[in-house]
Amino acid sequence: MPSKFKEIKRRDDELRRQAMESMTRRRIYLDYNATAPLLPAARQAMLDALDAANPSSVHAEGRASRQIIDQARRNVAALFDAKPEHVVFTSGATEAANMLLTPNWQMGRSPVRYSRAYVSAADHPCVLSGGQFASDAVQQIAVRPDGVLDLDALRAALAAHDASAGLPLVMLHNANNETGVLQPVEDIASIVRAAGGLIIYDAVQAAGRIPLDISAGYADFFIVSSHKIGGPKGAGAIIGASDLLMPRPLIKGGGQEKSHRAGTENIPGIAGFGAAAREALAQLDGIEAIKNKRVRIEALIHQHAPGATIYGEGAGRLPNTVFFSMPGVKAETAQIAFDLAGVALSAGSACSSGKVGPSHVLKAMGHADQAGALRISIGSGTTDNDIEFFGTALEKFVSGRRRASAA
Amino acid sequence: MPSKFKEIKRRDDELRRQAMESMTRRRIYLDYNATAPLLPAARQAMLDALDAANPSSVHAEGRASRQIIDQARRNVAALFDAKPEHVVFTSGATEAANMLLTPNWQMGRSPVRYSRAYVSAADHPCVLSGGQFASDAVQQIAVRPDGVLDLDALRAALAAHDASAGLPLVMLHNANNETGVLQPVEDIASIVRAAGGLIIYDAVQAAGRIPLDISAGYADFFIVSSHKIGGPKGAGAIIGASDLLMPRPLIKGGGQEKSHRAGTENIPGIAGFGAAAREALAQLDGIEAIKNKRVRIEALIHQHAPGATIYGEGAGRLPNTVFFSMPGVKAETAQIAFDLAGVALSAGSACSSGKVGPSHVLKAMGHADQAGALRISIGSGTTDNDIEFFGTALEKFVSGRRRASAA
Repeated sequence: MPSKFKEIKRRDDELRRQAMESMTRRRIYLDYNATAPLLPAARQAMLDALDAANPSSVHAEGRASRQIIDQARRNVAALFDAKPEHVVFTSGATEAANMLLTPNWQMGRSPVRYSRAYVSAADHPCVLSGGQFASDAVQQIAVRPDGVLDLDALRAALAAHDASAGLPLVMLHNANNETGVLQPVEDIASIVRAAGGLIIYDAVQAAGRIPLDISAGYADFFIVSSHKIGGPKGAGAIIGASDLLMPRPLIKGGGQEKSHRAGTENIPGIAGFGAAAREALAQLDGIEAIKNKRVRIEALIHQHAPGATIYGEGAGRLPNTVFFSMPGVKAETAQIAFDLAGVALSAGSACSSGKVGPSHVLKAMGHADQAGALRISIGSGTTDNDIEFFGTALEKFVSGRRRASAA
Repeated sequence: MPSKFKEIKRRDDELRRQAMESMTRRRIYLDYNATAPLLPAARQAMLDALDAANPSSVHAEGRASRQIIDQARRNVAALFDAKPEHVVFTSGATEAANMLLTPNWQMGRSPVRYSRAYVSAADHPCVLSGGQFASDAVQQIAVRPDGVLDLDALRAALAAHDASAGLPLVMLHNANNETGVLQPVEDIASIVRAAGGLIIYDAVQAAGRIPLDISAGYADFFIVSSHKIGGPKGAGAIIGASDLLMPRPLIKGGGQEKSHRAGTENIPGIAGFGAAAREALAQLDGIEAIKNKRVRIEALIHQHAPGATIYGEGAGRLPNTVFFSMPGVKAETAQIAFDLAGVALSAGSACSSGKVGPSHVLKAMGHADQAGALRISIGSGTTDNDIEFFGTALEKFVSGRRRASAA
């Protein structure tokens, strides 16, 4: 029956068309600051560690598991030019921030008290929350319009610090997660050291993207997240310049991590983190190439979206991050349009479960009134073709809006 | 040259012998309470989730990642007959215990204070440590010689509780990690409820080994660990009977887990945990088979090691756990001998980084003076052959000692 044949043929053609479309539908991932794709070496290290026993067990299976952690610790330490024994693994950077943001520290067995935490107004929510400090013991330091910490404000705050109750603890990002703006770590160090304070850097976005060297002396601790450097989610660490002065444990009740962090270790996560750290150290050679891609992205933005603002454009920034807004464009709308066009990028950060609100980072930089901004963040897997694909999507988005507003 | 040939041949033979020995060298894993081998379904779920994006991202990649968590949450809830929205994922049971062991709770926006924690003397170190309670606000309740909580002691302690400072919080294991002894949860519930207290069970060893049902009303919260039920290390949860009354977060600074636990979720870990929970629920049908294996192990112990003590033998116990000592045998020595013979079992628990000390559980049961005990813990992968292999190793160990002492 010809009509039935026609129907079958029509369905066949439709299925073929759908299959072709699905095969050619391309997706470009430009959201490395939310999570970096898992590196092949990290994947392999995880697979090798999936069957590992409890590293606290003394039998052969347990001892083999212990070696996996030791190797990862060496690799993570190397990324920060730190000693392996000064690395404490955690479940991620948020836990690490909460662990370090405490008034209660110990120098050996002697308690040391930090009475007040000083953070930047553009810090990540896990720093702004103040961890174990009472909310009135957390003080935000302003940032300038370009996103760089206001050093005079820091100096004034520390000068007003009441040392009778305890020492000052300063925790800052060294690269902002939304703008990529870098902080002047040497200048900050001289101010904080003069006040007798502790300096902790949220290095989550900086790690693996710029060289970080705890032996250089500008930081007492870094916190780092595995999944931002191409490792798995669920692992992070604090990296210390020493282990003389340590926070009282946040998670206690076991001797793991020299009693600084109790609980059976996340072996596959730690193994993947270690492998990613090793790769990240090698990839630091590719900073210029990443930066050139960012420069091209910025050129495409200025070309296709006249009047666009790139935040922190004048400041030192991470080689991989562009945070921009277009006049009259609501960032959430644009983000959805890009998603539909196959481009994964973000409107602000991805730190609170899909909740999209105004960026506190932009607000801190004095841009409270804008309609949000888009973040593009790239990495070792980003190709030139990906960037041109974004450029085409941007051009279509802008011209579509132009046609819509003309109609 | 014949002599060189002989040398090559000798080396070849030696290598072949070593290879054969390595291929035929059998290892039996009887340490499920330290960590259960990863179940195939958990492995597959992890592999499927390795490339997942940040579940807080709103793009397609992020939304797909969110679905992985939602599915795992449903599976973990089902194992405890709980509602998915009452599951909060953590990095493991130790974090979960620390999260719940806090004086600071909230009923909606109203603070609720628990002034004192009551724990069992045979609890896991992560419970004994008292979490966020001051050490003098943590009170240990005695256990009887068979390992069961002394209910009179609990009743007396709660009767003496000073309610003016806050409510009592009771946290206990419902199955002991070393002995497998089960607690009378219904009796405990009636005592604690009468005192207006909160009841939290460390269900780490009970989960997946006996039915646990939060809707039965004897517990307000369970804590659970993924890697003890055949999931990966690095994941755990608190499971609530409701979410009206919740602890102030231990790890804050992000909206994840409805703001109860901040930080990017460990997607592969959670995915594997969910799959393991689904399998564990199905495996509850196999309790009798596991118990029969335990009975056989105990028969082998009594057969080959006359005078051996099985701790908690008279009490209700997990179907998978045997904790025993042999007269005059130091547990650590025996553990090493079994390890060399290809049998992985433990001397006490594996909770503190290879540190082997006297068991606080045995001490709490009034067996302070013994030379340690060996723990055998089995699971779904344990075969009858494994158990006979252990029996042979035990026989050889005992007869070897007999010969040595005769010589």
